[in-house]
Order: sequence, then C-alpha cells, then structure tokens
Amino acid sequence: MHKVVLLGTGNLAHHLFDAFTKSNSVSVVQVFGRSAERLAYFKDRTKVTHKPENLLHADIYIIAVSDDAIHTVSQYIKNKKSIIAHCSGGMGLETLTEGSDRGVFYPLQSFSKGRKIDFSEVPLCIEGSSEIVLEKLISLGRTISQICVPINSKQRLAMHLAAVYTNNFTNHLLFKASQICEENDLPFSLLMPLLKETVSKLGILSPYDAQTGPARRNDRKTQEKHMKIISNKQDREIYALLSEAIQTTYGD
Amino acid sequence: MHKVVLLGTGNLAHHLFDAFTKSNSVSVVQVFGRSAERLAYFKDRTKVTHKPENLLHADIYIIAVSDDAIHTVSQYIKNKKSIIAHCSGGMGLETLTEGSDRGVFYPLQSFSKGRKIDFSEVPLCIEGSSEIVLEKLISLGRTISQICVPINSKQRLAMHLAAVYTNNFTNHLLFKASQICEENDLPFSLLMPLLKETVSKLGILSPYDAQTGPARRNDRKTQEKHMKIISNKQDREIYALLSEAIQTTYGD
Repeated sequence: MHKVVLLGTGNLAHHLFDAFTKSNSVSVVQVFGRSAERLAYFKDRTKVTHKPENLLHADIYIIAVSDDAIHTVSQYIKNKKSIIAHCSGGMGLETLTEGSDRGVFYPLQSFSKGRKIDFSEVPLCIEGSSEIVLEKLISLGRTISQICVPINSKQRLAMHLAAVYTNNFTNHLLFKASQICEENDLPFSLLMPLLKETVSKLGILSPYDAQTGPARRNDRKTQEKHMKIISNKQDREIYALLSEAIQTTYGD
Repeated sequence: MHKVVLLGTGNLAHHLFDAFTKSNSVSVVQVFGRSAERLAYFKDRTKVTHKPENLLHADIYIIAVSDDAIHTVSQYIKNKKSIIAHCSGGMGLETLTEGSDRGVFYPLQSFSKGRKIDFSEVPLCIEGSSEIVLEKLISLGRTISQICVPINSKQRLAMHLAAVYTNNFTNHLLFKASQICEENDLPFSLLMPLLKETVSKLGILSPYDAQTGPARRNDRKTQEKHMKIISNKQDREIYALLSEAIQTTYGD
C-alpha cells in the first residue's frame, strides 16, 4: 500500500485523486491546498489541510501545483524522509527542495475541469533521483496507468515541447479554422470528420507519409488563392511559414 | 436512378465509385481515365474507357481529377446536355467548360489509398449553376452521405482553407512532434492519448475555450526553455509565431 499525500487542488490534483482513490494499492491520506473552497472537493473523502505544519506522514508526496509554486510547496516537506515528486513536464528535478529523495510524475495529458479522463491510458513520464526512487514512483504509477515510462529531465522537456505542438499549437490552428467557418456562415462541425480522419490515419501512417495538401504538392495557385482571402497579417504569416516548412520537409 | 459517369481514377475516384456502387439509387455507367493500369480497379465492375469520344450518356458527369486537369477533362463533355460537376475545394464553377449545367461536388475529407472511409459521414459541399442543378446534385449526394450542404464558391474556398489548417498544418505540427520524439529516443505513440483528447475535447468545448499551454498562460520561462532546445531556425520561427498568435488571441 502506497501512502500518498497530494499537494494541490487544481484540475490535475482532482484527476490524480480520483485515479488514486480507485486503486486498492494507494491510500491518499491527505490533500493539502491553500484555499478552503478548493479543498471542499476532497474533504469528504480524505483528510485535508491548508497548513504546511499539519502535513501528515506519507511514503510519497505528490506536488500537483503550477510550475512557479513547486519549489515553495516542496519546502514544506523538506524534513520528511519520504519521496517528493512534482508533476510538471517543463521543470527539472532540482526544482524540488534539496536533500530529499526527489522525483517527477508527469502525466502526458491535458486535463480540463469536468472532463473524465481514463487514467489507465495516460502515459506517465517518471524520473527519480535514484534507482530506488524511480522504482517506487513507477510502482505507484502502475496502480493508475498502463503506460509508465522512465524518462530523464532532458527527454521530459522534449516531450513537453512535443506536447505543445500536439495539443496547444494544433488547437490554435483549429481555432483559426473555426474563425474562418464563422466568418463564412459555415458550421465548424463540418470539419470534424476531417479532423478525426487526420488523427486516426496516424495509427497506420507516420505524419511524414500522411502529409497532403497544396504545400505538399507545391500547388502555388491554390496557395495564392488562400493567401488572398486571409485578411489578417499574422494569419498570412502563419499560412506562409507553415507552407514553407512543409515544402522544406519534402523538397521543391 | 442517377446515371453517373465518373471521370478520374485516383484516390477520390476510388472512394466515390465504391460509395456510389453501394447505393441502389445510383448507376455508375462508366469510368473514364487515361491510364489502362489505373482503370483496372474499375473494369470488372462497370464499363471503362480511356477515349473521350467513347464517353457514354449520363445524367451527371463527376470529374474527380487534379485541379489542373479539370478544365481539359470538362471539355470532353461540352456537347452533352447533362450536369457536369467537379470535386475540388479550391476551384470555382467557371473552371468547367462553358455552356453546360455546372456544379461542384466537394467531399470535405482527406482520402488516402487503402484507407476505408465511411462516406455516409463525409460532408458534401455542393454548388450548382442553377437551382435545378443544385437540387439534382444534392439528391445524388444524399445517396452516399448524410451531410449535404449547399455552399457557394466563396464559402467553398474558405472551407478549403479551413481544411488546410485542420488537416495539412496540423499534420505538419504532428510531424514536428514525431521528429522531437525520434531525436530523444521517445516513442511518438506516447503522444496519441493527448492528441485524441485534443480532438475529442472539441465535441464539448470550442477551440477558443479549449486552449491551454505556456503561450496561453503567458509563461515566458517555459517558452524560453523550449526555444533553447529547438535546434532548427525555421522550427524556432514556427514556435515563436504560433506562441505569439496565441498571445494575440487572448491578450497579454
């Protein structure tokens, strides 16, 4: 049985808490957070506290707070002889207070309030300051996910960057597509089958092989027509740069 | 019963042929193509020809060829008193030979060889040179798809542009993500749950509301860390421009 204290009350903390409490091998003995209001979600299901000095003993302290708060929160636990792990893709091990057994427990997923996520399919990218720490965190990870991958800080930052492309930038392009639809009295939902096919194709083809479109086939006429109907300068820059990047990838 | 001649032997022609032949209300009386090799796919299932002068009579001629070839192919049919329609997102009605009943039958999907597509879920963007042409093409469209939308040339070009964002540009960003994974000995498949969630979230949230990430929360520290590990100048430009575009969208 892993005894865990969860520090944080945001989206990720909610999802982690729900996943841990479903497992028979984990006991979340306490949730820590500064806001009484945000602790409310947890208080009927485990102990809660907003006072660092009241933190209970645990085998593993999981810090699920924003990047900027990780270091401060980790200092609340610096005298405990336990493992401290944060959940950030972009922060190194050294963000955590020195002298402790440190680790990272980074779920590679985008968590939104109110959306159910099947945690068993969320890849957990795990790092430890020693082999023992790594093993213990992987063992904890396996209680909630089928995909636990040991990766180092350098790899994790790269993965975080790849996730920005996969989620953040992709979503922004979809926002642009939705704007174009709106401006032309077209429902954005018309694009959903195309979007789903774009993604499911990648189960069979690599993104390199799946590329199609005017830039891929160097179809300048269509590109010019598109550029003419993009009214915004920044949007034209995006269109031109991404088209250029596709042409760079496949040669002219 | 719609009597159809299909002109073209590429991916789209394959998919359209398969969809039409499944319908009891359509008879594909002939397929036209210049390459005997590419006609082979069709020749056991309907008549085929590579000679324009041998084109049979049909109610509707569907031209499913590359943009550059549409005009030439449409001239083979200029003496027929039937409807001629092309399937391109980026070309206007006027691409077709003058004097005929003209239309557009644009399936908003990305068709790859060997990938099965459920045509009933492919939106068909339909235009006609008259109300009667439009109605006949919509009636043909309904035999294969649940989603037949009358849209004009201006809207269709906009939709084609939105499709470039949704499919081509998104796919290229996923290619970038796959490159980052490869360079760091990480399997690209780790990103699949995130990608699937990025898409399925849009069933509930608009892309505007679904945006997350360092650029959205104006997290300069993380953005700097990412920029430092992108080795290629063009990739840094893409990262910077898309981050800037997200910040423009949400304000600083």
